[in-house]
Amino acid sequence: MTHPPLSLVRLRPKADVRAIRHGFPWVFADELVTDRRTRALAPGTIARLEDAERRPLGTVAVNPNSKIICRMLDRDPEAEIGEDWFAARLRRALALREAAFAAPFYRLIHAEADGLPGVVIDRFGEAAVVQPNAAWAESRLDALIAALRSVTGVRAVVKNGTGRARTLEGLPEETVLLEGTVEAPVPVPMNGATYMADLLGGQKTGLFFDQRPNHAFAATLAKGGDVLDVFSHVGGFGLAALAGGAARAVCVDGSAPALELAEQGAAASGVAERLETRRGDAFDAMAALAEDDVRFHLVVCDPPAFAPSKQALEAGLRAYERVARLGAGLVRAGGFLVLCSCSHAADLSRFRAASVRGIGKAGRRGQIIHTGFAGPDHPMLPQLAESGYLKVLFFRLTE
Amino acid sequence: MTHPPLSLVRLRPKADVRAIRHGFPWVFADELVTDRRTRALAPGTIARLEDAERRPLGTVAVNPNSKIICRMLDRDPEAEIGEDWFAARLRRALALREAAFAAPFYRLIHAEADGLPGVVIDRFGEAAVVQPNAAWAESRLDALIAALRSVTGVRAVVKNGTGRARTLEGLPEETVLLEGTVEAPVPVPMNGATYMADLLGGQKTGLFFDQRPNHAFAATLAKGGDVLDVFSHVGGFGLAALAGGAARAVCVDGSAPALELAEQGAAASGVAERLETRRGDAFDAMAALAEDDVRFHLVVCDPPAFAPSKQALEAGLRAYERVARLGAGLVRAGGFLVLCSCSHAADLSRFRAASVRGIGKAGRRGQIIHTGFAGPDHPMLPQLAESGYLKVLFFRLTE
Repeated sequence: MTHPPLSLVRLRPKADVRAIRHGFPWVFADELVTDRRTRALAPGTIARLEDAERRPLGTVAVNPNSKIICRMLDRDPEAEIGEDWFAARLRRALALREAAFAAPFYRLIHAEADGLPGVVIDRFGEAAVVQPNAAWAESRLDALIAALRSVTGVRAVVKNGTGRARTLEGLPEETVLLEGTVEAPVPVPMNGATYMADLLGGQKTGLFFDQRPNHAFAATLAKGGDVLDVFSHVGGFGLAALAGGAARAVCVDGSAPALELAEQGAAASGVAERLETRRGDAFDAMAALAEDDVRFHLVVCDPPAFAPSKQALEAGLRAYERVARLGAGLVRAGGFLVLCSCSHAADLSRFRAASVRGIGKAGRRGQIIHTGFAGPDHPMLPQLAESGYLKVLFFRLTE
Repeated sequence: MTHPPLSLVRLRPKADVRAIRHGFPWVFADELVTDRRTRALAPGTIARLEDAERRPLGTVAVNPNSKIICRMLDRDPEAEIGEDWFAARLRRALALREAAFAAPFYRLIHAEADGLPGVVIDRFGEAAVVQPNAAWAESRLDALIAALRSVTGVRAVVKNGTGRARTLEGLPEETVLLEGTVEAPVPVPMNGATYMADLLGGQKTGLFFDQRPNHAFAATLAKGGDVLDVFSHVGGFGLAALAGGAARAVCVDGSAPALELAEQGAAASGVAERLETRRGDAFDAMAALAEDDVRFHLVVCDPPAFAPSKQALEAGLRAYERVARLGAGLVRAGGFLVLCSCSHAADLSRFRAASVRGIGKAGRRGQIIHTGFAGPDHPMLPQLAESGYLKVLFFRLTE
C-alpha cells in the first residue's frame, strides 16, 4: 500500500514555536499560514507541520474550519496515522489504567493527554464508548476501533457523537452501536457500589468516571450518617456513601431516567432500602428541605458546568455561591459539605471564593479538609494543566 | 474563682474589619492601636478585640512582640479560655479525625483551622506530641494538656518546642516529656505499613502525617515495581509502597537516624528484605544512580521546603527544577515521577511550572495524573486556603 504525499502546513513567524516544541498540542488559526491550499484541506487532513523556517515539527491533524486549526498527533513528522499507531497509543493508555485500577472500568483515552487529540473513550468491561470529537478521528474511526478491539479485547463499541466540541469541528450528532451488543444498562463496580450505566441513551458516555476518588473520600466521611446528593445523576456520591456504610441517602436530580438508574444501582448494590430519590429542580428541592428543617450529616452538590465559558463566568460563580448557600443550610453542625465544579472557566481559587461566600451567607463557618480533582484516568498534559476542569471542595462546617 | 477584668485592644480604622468578621484569624501589628498600655501587655495575654467604633469582635491572644499581634481565639468576646474551652475545641477536632481515620494516629490539632492558633498536636495512639508555637498557648499549657488527656485518653504527652514559629513569638527551644512514658520509637500503622516515630528526638513531631493520602496513591502505582524514595526521612513513601506490593525500594536520606527508623519500620512491616537505604546528599545520590544507568518504575522526591519564604522563592524554584530534572532521568519510560513541595511560598502553579521545566530539561515528557495535598487531618481555614503548603504532583513519563 502506497501513501499519498503528506500535506504541508507552516507556522507564521509570530507563532509560539517554543511552546509547541515543549509539548503544547495546538496551533491556533492565526498562528498558521492559511493560504488557499491550506484553507482547501478537508477537515481532519493529516499534514506535516513546519516552523516558519521550514523545519519539521511533527505530524498534525488540520481542520481549517476550527479555531484549533492543527492538533499535534506525533512529534515524528513521518508518523503514519493508522491502526498500528492507534494501537501504540492505546497500549500506553491502557498500561496507566491497569496500574491504577483493579477492574476494567475507567476512562481509557482522555484526549490530548493520552495522545489522541479530541478523542474520548470510556471502558465498561467488555464494552467501550468512543467519542470522536475531532474531524481527524471521525474520518479514521475504523482504524481506531480495530486497534481498540485488538488492544483491549472489548466486544461492543458505541459511538457517542453528542459532544459539544463536535459542533465546533463541523461534525454531526449521532449515537450508534458500531460493534457487538450492549446490555442496557451495564453494571459498573466502583468504590464498593454497583452503578448502572446506559451506554446508548445516557448523559455523556453513560457514567462519570472522573469523580471516583471524590466519591470514595465522601463515602469515608458519610459512614453512619445521612447523605443528601444533589444533582445526583445515576447516584454517584449517594451509592458510594451507602456502600460505604451511610445510614441513608437522598438523591435529587432533574432526570427521571437517571434516578431510575440510581434505584437500579441501589438494588444491585444491596442498599435499595436506604435510598430515596426525588425528581425535581435542585434549587427548589434544597429550598423545600430547608423549609421543612431537614438537616444531613453530609450534603453533596455536583451541578452541571455553571461557567462553561469565560463569558458565563460571573453568572456561573453566582450560581455556585447560591448552591453553596443552600447546601450549607442543610448540613448539621459538625457535618460535611461537598461542593463540585466541572467548569473550565471557574478556576480553583474563584470557585473556592464563591463557595466560601455562599457558606458565609448561610451563616455557617467551616474548614476545608480536602480538595479533590478528577481521577488518574483523566490525565492532563502539563501544558494544559491550568485548565483542569473538575474541582471538589470538602468543607466541614464547625458552626 | 473570680477573673481579672479582660484587657481591651482596638483596631485602627484602616484595619480590614470585614475580613476579621468573615473569619480571617489574625490582626497584624499595623492594624491595631498600639498605645503604651497595649505594648506593655505580656506576650500571650488574652484580650477582648474591638473594632474602631468600639464594637466587640471577639476574644484574642495578644503578642506585642509578634507581627501577628492578635490571634482570634473565639468570636465570643466573653469566652473564658480555660480547660473547658480547650476541651470543646479538642472534641470538635477529634470528631473529624474519628470520621476520617480508623486508628488514632493523626494530626489532632492543626493550629488556626482547628481553632487553636499556633498550636499543633500530633497523636500517636496513647501518646501525643504538643507544639505550643504561640505565647498564649505556652502560658496555658497545663489547661491544654489536662483537656487533651481527658478528651482523648492519651497517657503520655511530649512538648516539642522546636518550631521555627516559636522564635518569632520569643519562646525558647525545648523538647520534654511532660506526662507518662514513651517507648522509643513508637510503631505507627499507616497505609498497611508500620512506621517508627521517634517522639522525643525526631524531626518535627516524629512523623509526617500530612503525606498519608499521597503515600497511598503512590503505593497503588508502585505495585510490582521498584521504587526510589529520595529525601525519604523514616521511609514515608518507600514503606507504603513495599507494604502495597512494590518489588523493591531504595530510600535515600541525609539522616542516619531517620534511615535507621526506616529499617526498623521495614522490619516491623515484614518487608525488610526488599528495602535498601542509602545515606547521603540527595542530589549526589541521584547523580550517582544516573551515572550507573539505574532506572526505577517510580521515583519520589519529597525534599525539605526549598522556598520557605518569599525571599527564597526564585532560588527555591530552581532547586525544585533541579530535583525534577534529576528525578525524571531515573524513571523508566512509562513509569512515574512524584514531586513534592512543602513550601508555602511556591504555589501550585509555580511549583508545577518548575517541575515541568525540569522534566523537559531531562529530555522527558509526561502526563499529570494526580495532584495531591495534605490529608484531612490538616484542615485549612478557607480564609487562609491560598497558603496550603503541601503540593504533590504525580507525573507519568510517557517518553
